[in-house]
Amino acid sequence: MNIGLLGFGVVGRGVYEIVRGREDMRVRKVLCLEDISLPDAEAVKDFSQILEDDSIDTVVEAMGGLHPSYEFVSAALAAGKHVVTSNKALVCTYYDKLLPLAREKGVHLRATAAVGGGIGWLSELERSRRVQKLTEVGGIMNGTCNYILDNMTRFGLGYDEALKQAQSLGYAEANPATDVDGIDTWHKVILSANVAFGVSLEKQSVPVAGIRNITARDVESFAGHGLVCKLISTGKRLGDGFSAYVQPTLVAAGSLEAAVPLNYNLITFLGESSERMSFYGQGAGRYPTAYNVVQDLVDVLGGKGFYAPYGGKAQARNEETMGYYVRGGWDGPVREDWGSGVVTEPVSVDAMHRWLKEHPQAFIAGIRD
Amino acid sequence: MNIGLLGFGVVGRGVYEIVRGREDMRVRKVLCLEDISLPDAEAVKDFSQILEDDSIDTVVEAMGGLHPSYEFVSAALAAGKHVVTSNKALVCTYYDKLLPLAREKGVHLRATAAVGGGIGWLSELERSRRVQKLTEVGGIMNGTCNYILDNMTRFGLGYDEALKQAQSLGYAEANPATDVDGIDTWHKVILSANVAFGVSLEKQSVPVAGIRNITARDVESFAGHGLVCKLISTGKRLGDGFSAYVQPTLVAAGSLEAAVPLNYNLITFLGESSERMSFYGQGAGRYPTAYNVVQDLVDVLGGKGFYAPYGGKAQARNEETMGYYVRGGWDGPVREDWGSGVVTEPVSVDAMHRWLKEHPQAFIAGIRD
Repeated sequence: MNIGLLGFGVVGRGVYEIVRGREDMRVRKVLCLEDISLPDAEAVKDFSQILEDDSIDTVVEAMGGLHPSYEFVSAALAAGKHVVTSNKALVCTYYDKLLPLAREKGVHLRATAAVGGGIGWLSELERSRRVQKLTEVGGIMNGTCNYILDNMTRFGLGYDEALKQAQSLGYAEANPATDVDGIDTWHKVILSANVAFGVSLEKQSVPVAGIRNITARDVESFAGHGLVCKLISTGKRLGDGFSAYVQPTLVAAGSLEAAVPLNYNLITFLGESSERMSFYGQGAGRYPTAYNVVQDLVDVLGGKGFYAPYGGKAQARNEETMGYYVRGGWDGPVREDWGSGVVTEPVSVDAMHRWLKEHPQAFIAGIRD
Repeated sequence: MNIGLLGFGVVGRGVYEIVRGREDMRVRKVLCLEDISLPDAEAVKDFSQILEDDSIDTVVEAMGGLHPSYEFVSAALAAGKHVVTSNKALVCTYYDKLLPLAREKGVHLRATAAVGGGIGWLSELERSRRVQKLTEVGGIMNGTCNYILDNMTRFGLGYDEALKQAQSLGYAEANPATDVDGIDTWHKVILSANVAFGVSLEKQSVPVAGIRNITARDVESFAGHGLVCKLISTGKRLGDGFSAYVQPTLVAAGSLEAAVPLNYNLITFLGESSERMSFYGQGAGRYPTAYNVVQDLVDVLGGKGFYAPYGGKAQARNEETMGYYVRGGWDGPVREDWGSGVVTEPVSVDAMHRWLKEHPQAFIAGIRD
């Protein structure tokens, strides 16, 4: 296998290093705008030098972002090259373009590192669906949010302080919006549900609430009720459709989710035969992410394409009801007043997220039974 | 694929049911000593009716026990049939016979359900070792012990009471020795280490201590020190060899291991690139176990054999030292007295297990940093 590697940042360099130790694949060219010099690969600044090189059969996209990643990846697929990427935004946003294109061209597209970093999650969904119907996917899919929430819970830090700490350790970006507003988790749960259920969820039908507005007082209040707050995603197969959403969620202090420390992920599926299966590991970082990129390359060598057939479009319907903790302007029915905020009577997920859009300063968290 | 199914108990019946829903495989004959009647498979009482049936290409062993399972499985392999089993005692005990035999005959042997029940654990070790060196395996591998210890921890039950409860729910056998003395876990960690490291550990070099002697007072004492007791297995790659052992282990109350409830398993590997990965799920039960048996059947159809090459024999060396909690006759150096028992100065695992053999009424638990 001859690889054209797009990007030489955290993940790209990790892929390059792991591939160097292998006999069955080789990085031939690296697209990098900076001047770099590599002992056994050609550094190029123009993507056409990879695209037009017939000796390169596989492209690894490790640039991130939507553009020009999308243009490069679709050009590579159109040119008959396999593509492996760790870019969840790309695969989620252009799911309806990339999957049909890969199928049409008879090439393989894989993105295991896009969800769960080093966890073999999409590959395990692929394995699992060979034998059973999957009924639910979701969990803690963003290490940045988990790091912030974990530090607020363990050390009583305020949100700003916990965010700064995460930034100083490189766990959060200077502009943390994609993580703390739940967008990263949103991409990941949509991708997971698409693979698990064999559909293509309409992204705008999947509501997302982030952790930006949580305060130390909220967290203290949760602890007083034996609860811990985590940013949790949910995707469910319903009798006649699908449900999917992302929101801060209060879980019991002794639960597995509550025990997830630092920047770790814990992702779960439920299946009709296997019952609950959860996967814990590093959801980001150079080597864990690069590890799954190289796993995908091995699978491409073995003839494996995407994890599930491309399914038809479907709207998520979130009529499920639950009690919510709300701070900031809730005027619906209230079950309990916790001082820092109130606990609502059961409200549907869709209704609560509609309310939140009109109250962007509020903080909400679903309460898990 | 035409299957001869040996045994029609908890797992066998589950395999039969899942296979019935599939197009790519069919159970042709079921070996069962009781009189049963099945709509689409022949019930037989004599194994030779399966062995000598050339239309049967694959044997599923779901009888348990070593004999006649071993004789049946080796006869099936010798006759050129693939074998899938969930029998950890069998595969662990006869590792050095079964693996070379399967290789010699060019047939496939798989046993994913033997470790972790419904967790895709051995199959994930197989995937993982394609890309990285695995450095450690282990964890909570026995649901019966976890159920007993969890109930002692959460509800202050005594050992006998917790065991009785596990028995009444079908989580423990009338004679629970294999579970509570750690033998089941011992088989599983040896099998895991063999696959992860590509060796064949000498079983007698892997020491095991069980939970039979733990008391409510011990557990209370652990809680007072912020610790929880779990039966944990460990297998490690050393610079120049391997380490492996099974023992009650004290972990921090907030840790992931401590949060594992009821009869669940939590199994972990460490790899040079992926770092820590843990897998949580049902380690037993009809459908979870049958699910992984059928996964193996799908993999056999795809041409997959055993998870790792058959490696040479190796002794485990457990010179690693740690502090132990000991109740019952410890006369070595002591770091702390907890009333219910003492905490030793660091002792090597091998030395502590040698001491335990001479003090079978004692209870020991390694203390994890």
